[in-house]
Amino acid sequence: MKNHIKTKYEILRQKIYIIIYGSNTFAGKLFDLILLGVILLSVLLVMLETVEQLDAKYHQFLIISEWIITVVFTLEYIMRIISNKKPLNYILSFYGIVDLISILPMYLSFFIPGSRMLSVIRALRLLRLFGILNLVHFTGQESQLKLAIKASRTKIIVFVYFVLIVSILLGAIMYVVEGKESGFTSIPVSIYWCIVTLTTVGYGDIAPVTTLGQIIASFIMIMGYGIIAVPTGIVTAEFAGMKNKDKNNDVKKCPSCTTLIYKDDARYCHHCGEKICDE
Amino acid sequence: MKNHIKTKYEILRQKIYIIIYGSNTFAGKLFDLILLGVILLSVLLVMLETVEQLDAKYHQFLIISEWIITVVFTLEYIMRIISNKKPLNYILSFYGIVDLISILPMYLSFFIPGSRMLSVIRALRLLRLFGILNLVHFTGQESQLKLAIKASRTKIIVFVYFVLIVSILLGAIMYVVEGKESGFTSIPVSIYWCIVTLTTVGYGDIAPVTTLGQIIASFIMIMGYGIIAVPTGIVTAEFAGMKNKDKNNDVKKCPSCTTLIYKDDARYCHHCGEKICDE
Amino acid sequence: MKNHIKTKYEILRQKIYIIIYGSNTFAGKLFDLILLGVILLSVLLVMLETVEQLDAKYHQFLIISEWIITVVFTLEYIMRIISNKKPLNYILSFYGIVDLISILPMYLSFFIPGSRMLSVIRALRLLRLFGILNLVHFTGQESQLKLAIKASRTKIIVFVYFVLIVSILLGAIMYVVEGKESGFTSIPVSIYWCIVTLTTVGYGDIAPVTTLGQIIASFIMIMGYGIIAVPTGIVTAEFAGMKNKDKNNDVKKCPSCTTLIYKDDARYCHHCGEKICDE
Amino acid sequence: MKNHIKTKYEILRQKIYIIIYGSNTFAGKLFDLILLGVILLSVLLVMLETVEQLDAKYHQFLIISEWIITVVFTLEYIMRIISNKKPLNYILSFYGIVDLISILPMYLSFFIPGSRMLSVIRALRLLRLFGILNLVHFTGQESQLKLAIKASRTKIIVFVYFVLIVSILLGAIMYVVEGKESGFTSIPVSIYWCIVTLTTVGYGDIAPVTTLGQIIASFIMIMGYGIIAVPTGIVTAEFAGMKNKDKNNDVKKCPSCTTLIYKDDARYCHHCGEKICDE
Repeated sequence: MKNHIKTKYEILRQKIYIIIYGSNTFAGKLFDLILLGVILLSVLLVMLETVEQLDAKYHQFLIISEWIITVVFTLEYIMRIISNKKPLNYILSFYGIVDLISILPMYLSFFIPGSRMLSVIRALRLLRLFGILNLVHFTGQESQLKLAIKASRTKIIVFVYFVLIVSILLGAIMYVVEGKESGFTSIPVSIYWCIVTLTTVGYGDIAPVTTLGQIIASFIMIMGYGIIAVPTGIVTAEFAGMKNKDKNNDVKKCPSCTTLIYKDDARYCHHCGEKICDE
Repeated sequence: MKNHIKTKYEILRQKIYIIIYGSNTFAGKLFDLILLGVILLSVLLVMLETVEQLDAKYHQFLIISEWIITVVFTLEYIMRIISNKKPLNYILSFYGIVDLISILPMYLSFFIPGSRMLSVIRALRLLRLFGILNLVHFTGQESQLKLAIKASRTKIIVFVYFVLIVSILLGAIMYVVEGKESGFTSIPVSIYWCIVTLTTVGYGDIAPVTTLGQIIASFIMIMGYGIIAVPTGIVTAEFAGMKNKDKNNDVKKCPSCTTLIYKDDARYCHHCGEKICDE
Repeated sequence: MKNHIKTKYEILRQKIYIIIYGSNTFAGKLFDLILLGVILLSVLLVMLETVEQLDAKYHQFLIISEWIITVVFTLEYIMRIISNKKPLNYILSFYGIVDLISILPMYLSFFIPGSRMLSVIRALRLLRLFGILNLVHFTGQESQLKLAIKASRTKIIVFVYFVLIVSILLGAIMYVVEGKESGFTSIPVSIYWCIVTLTTVGYGDIAPVTTLGQIIASFIMIMGYGIIAVPTGIVTAEFAGMKNKDKNNDVKKCPSCTTLIYKDDARYCHHCGEKICDE
Repeated sequence: MKNHIKTKYEILRQKIYIIIYGSNTFAGKLFDLILLGVILLSVLLVMLETVEQLDAKYHQFLIISEWIITVVFTLEYIMRIISNKKPLNYILSFYGIVDLISILPMYLSFFIPGSRMLSVIRALRLLRLFGILNLVHFTGQESQLKLAIKASRTKIIVFVYFVLIVSILLGAIMYVVEGKESGFTSIPVSIYWCIVTLTTVGYGDIAPVTTLGQIIASFIMIMGYGIIAVPTGIVTAEFAGMKNKDKNNDVKKCPSCTTLIYKDDARYCHHCGEKICDE
């Protein structure tokens, strides 16, 4: 009898698991879409709450909505743990931690006022969309993006480190040249200005006014012009390289050992030496 | 007799059709060029009407000119429908809809004042230029542009979605760090600032003033520096790939050993020495 | 006797020609370098003259220097015409016209005050540097730049035309949304703002203040983010393509017909069918 | 006896040398890391000293810390000279000069007040990190960066020279068009503005206000849009080229038919079927 209940419970658990974690069944897809909608809504709520006019008018409504969503998210979190055979795997995964952090701030707001703002971290849950849209093509694109960024990571870190050293030096020079009257009040502020300029953002809250300062600034800008080419070059070469590999995918298979043969004028398999016939 | 009129009418219809839709005859080219000029003029008129000093001086003249152009466009629209054998094809096509929307606002302005401004949508008619300049080479270029953009669309959508999530999180952080005094009045405004910064536009209407804010902003800018490389890398790889494909498209096959021959002035197979015949 | 004078004159003419136009002899090089220095100086003079503090102090000195340089340039211009066998070729060439325009404004300033400012066109003479540094490698680089830009010209024109149409439409939308209070005083100004934003320049002299305006602006910026990738992609693909062609230069020569063979695994010349021996 | 002392001293010298210059032993690595930490600290100190609030509070502490660090750096500098067999090699090397300049400003501050600020040049010592992290892979990346930048140097110089000439001409035009009221107070300032615009930095401290000025500015911006593509294209093509060369570098030759084999796990020649031996 007890066993029977256990089996029934197990079946229920599996059903819930498929709905919550899977996205192949209709129910699973529906669940995912609704969840995504609720996440979007909750992120919007946190955002709108900080707009004073809206908060003044709809404070009550916003608070209640947010509590409802937090309770829904809490239930979802519990369901995810219960329905999973290896709950620890989920709890310690990236999404498991994000899901927990998404609901904690609201409960913490009882003890620490203002912590509610942290709920905005829920935006990270929107990354789930990539999991939901697990069409082969789409995720292929995503993982290609990831690969290209990963491959160029070291080069970009070296590059950023170098840019920072240059910024410190140029920042110090501009501090000496422009002085406190032009807004270059300290070396850290000058470095901030230098980064703003090198990245071509250019707020204009601080701008050189002396002639020498403007000449140095021009020099920095033209340098930044050339420098912006470097990360672009790195990532592009990575993408282009991956594309080439892709292209080589129109390959033949060795008839005897099924090794992929990339050279299109190959006459023998490079793996087993078998002759490849021309059709 | 009636048939005769019909045939005469049919011939007239075809003549008009060739003039309006075609651009191979002299009359057709002339029509296209005049039309393009009138479109340009009408877009200019709508634009200038919003400049207060000009409107004050030439209001009467501007209004009358615009009405004349609208009537001309209306006649053209009717002609396009009449002269076309399958008018629905035209009416429901992209240009058909644009042509209709280009004339509607003026008539609507009788009922809804201020709707005349919408006439600016006529600018879309300028896209016709691509149709007029249907030189093989030129449209080849255009369609290559289109293809490259289409091919990289998915990757760019994934990328923009990712950038938006990052902007929400960073915007919220900056809102907490900078507070309302620095212009970061709400999370939506902070997100707006974050997009302005990540895209390296940098208006400077909102800029961080606290030290921590400036450090985070520097971090965002340097990140944006690396991030701007991603769409560039995607599109460039696409272009470069197409360039390669182009090059590979003019290959022949050796008749005796089926080796691919890439050089288009090759007279002998580089693999087996067989003569390749010129067609 | 007369003939003798003519020959002597002819020899003198040729000597001057070699000094002025050539840059292989020592005298020719010296002339070029001094000329470049004088051009740089004259451009600097025109520039400094517009700085009020400097002009107030050194007005007399600046004017006299400029007149001296103008006279020197005039003499050089006359010498170039006299020493050239086909003076019209020089006069109608790009540099010939530039040289004339460089000296005219000073003489015109007798009749039209203020026209002296146009002397700044002398900066174009600085382009001569490319002619002077006619090292093979260097000009190779320059012409590669020119080729890449020329090859991508059509694509870039199509692209800019498209961007302009988009700017008109978005500018009109922003004019309607933001209105005159936010600085969007007319559609042309809005279009100006839109170009400032799309190109990621972002002065901040005009910036959206309404929520809807900021949302649309964010959208425009992210679009600009993707759009900036297009010209970069076009030019880069062009450069990469040229590089590939370069790479193919490590080729073999057919021993019998001296045709260049680009495929490195070729066993027969593709032109004459001769067998290529492996060394 | 004296010889014995000399040998002992020589052994000590070598030990110190390995610790200071090497980074393979534990002591060497520890020394490098501590040194890097002290450098970072000293750069931070110089930077913070210029922040008025901090300087007012902790002036005494900052001065003393800086003196301690300067003494430490001086000792290190002396050790480097003593422990090196060829001290001149070190003294005249890039790092030798940087190390000297890093300590001089503090001692000079006795005679020239304010020269202490120059200590910020210590930031250059941070470049040592590249030497410390001499992992093969990492420096491979670094040198690839260096190579790509070196290879595209000539092209970029030509490009910058060209941009400067364009800036002078456009700057002069904007000076004439906008005049002194809009902030374009002189041609040099206009050139500065032009560079700010062409590089898409766009501070907005100077911005065109007349209609004609805004039209020209729009034209400059769109040009800058296309121009920014050029350095990017140059560097990217360089990177992509190097990537290709990399790939081609791991090729073997078939021992019997000398065909190049690009797949590194190939066991048979794809051309003649000969077995390739593993070394």
